[in-house]
Amino acid sequence: MLVRIGMDSCVIPLRFQSLSLVQTTDFFYPLVDDPYIQGRITCANVLSDLYAMGVTECDNMLMLLGVSSRLSQKERDIIVPLLMKGFSDLAVEAGTSIQGGQTVVNPWMICGGVATSVVHANEIILPHNAVEGDVLVLTKPLGTQIAVNIHQWMDDDDKWLSIKHVITKEEAVKAYQRAMSSMARLNRTAARLMHKYNAHGCTDVTGFGLLGHASNLAKIQKSEVSFVIHNLPIIAKMAVVAKHIKMTCLDFTREAQQKLQEDFSSLSPELRLLPIVRR
Amino acid sequence: MLVRIGMDSCVIPLRFQSLSLVQTTDFFYPLVDDPYIQGRITCANVLSDLYAMGVTECDNMLMLLGVSSRLSQKERDIIVPLLMKGFSDLAVEAGTSIQGGQTVVNPWMICGGVATSVVHANEIILPHNAVEGDVLVLTKPLGTQIAVNIHQWMDDDDKWLSIKHVITKEEAVKAYQRAMSSMARLNRTAARLMHKYNAHGCTDVTGFGLLGHASNLAKIQKSEVSFVIHNLPIIAKMAVVAKHIKMTCLDFTREAQQKLQEDFSSLSPELRLLPIVRR
Repeated sequence: MLVRIGMDSCVIPLRFQSLSLVQTTDFFYPLVDDPYIQGRITCANVLSDLYAMGVTECDNMLMLLGVSSRLSQKERDIIVPLLMKGFSDLAVEAGTSIQGGQTVVNPWMICGGVATSVVHANEIILPHNAVEGDVLVLTKPLGTQIAVNIHQWMDDDDKWLSIKHVITKEEAVKAYQRAMSSMARLNRTAARLMHKYNAHGCTDVTGFGLLGHASNLAKIQKSEVSFVIHNLPIIAKMAVVAKHIKMTCLDFTREAQQKLQEDFSSLSPELRLLPIVRR
Repeated sequence: MLVRIGMDSCVIPLRFQSLSLVQTTDFFYPLVDDPYIQGRITCANVLSDLYAMGVTECDNMLMLLGVSSRLSQKERDIIVPLLMKGFSDLAVEAGTSIQGGQTVVNPWMICGGVATSVVHANEIILPHNAVEGDVLVLTKPLGTQIAVNIHQWMDDDDKWLSIKHVITKEEAVKAYQRAMSSMARLNRTAARLMHKYNAHGCTDVTGFGLLGHASNLAKIQKSEVSFVIHNLPIIAKMAVVAKHIKMTCLDFTREAQQKLQEDFSSLSPELRLLPIVRR
């Protein structure tokens, strides 16, 4: 069995009976301005793809780092150790360790990693076995991207002006902190509970948003099932802000959206075989 | 046993009796102007760290790519598929496959990968068991960096002028082609021969040069041994060019060297725990 489509991690059968290699990688650019939290977010994000397959034990992690050539030496010496410590602390919390990795100098900071586990087949929960009556559970609240974006808007008078009547600075800071702590939290307990309650499938919701990942999950199901999303946990105020942005500030967001779409569409179809994330 | 120091790959004992996870990652920037060959070089470079541990079977590879935001769409559509095909073709030649990876848009092109193998302990050759009388064998010729550099100098009249009396353009092109094909070649046969002839240690010679890697290898030996290097395979003309550059064109190279050293020295000691490569 070699499963690929719709999987958060790849699963490779090994030559040793009934054992499989489960493996995932992710690297991206910093989302938040706290390097320690960014390190934790990176680690949680990499491990999340294992957890989404019901794999609760990670045998090894590799850390992938790009250190920005635009940082001064002083900035590097503060930021990079904090980033590594955040990654490493969360890896310890996940019961794994980091043996290896690679660091390069790059114009942009890069944070990423690899998570690998060798497991018996029964430790893996495949994503495509949903049956009628299954309940979809979201383990983290939505709205992190909005929270991160409007936190940046706080430093830009024009942008802030456009949303200040729907959210206060205190609320924006609170939402940002809520988003950071949520992104920096492991989904390991959720992965354990999937086994306890015999879950029939799961996916990790990241770069393609809830709708993108839900569509993927729905598409790969073996049984004829409908996915109904009727109630969503959302970080406080983020729904109203998102709605407001959509109605009024289309010029900022349309521009960003278009840029993103250009980046995607300009890669030919074969290239999209690899997950592409740009934040 | 958890071995780290002086190893080309990390070795992690698994919970399944006598099995270990052997894993390595590497990512860097393009060295040559042929994207297909660059893809092969990337794959060979990643796998080389497994082969240096005597591991001949790779269970899975992940591909890590950064697509330069400075490329036009047309350039992307030509370069990136070729890069991926080169990587993938060599992975097939190595008897492995690529199940997973990550692509981001980045100012600079990034090429890299992860190689993972699950093996019995006796499939790993540790690097520290050299005994008196062992012969050091270099499986690829030296001089690749010089060959790549002077190939770039061919497009720069001033630089070319400084070496044109020690090498012809034809020789420079030949050296460049020799360097490319050598870098794009797997060390898998060498890894197999290590088992056949009961090798006592090995290392992969890359970013730190022959002297850097030889020093590392010498340092970790358990027995009191001396390493004597008396005869080196070098790509034709590269020794004389290197010597000439050292004597005469110090301004180009000193500048590059200093930049490199700054990059290294400005990272605090803890950061050097991860292999750092800049080319």
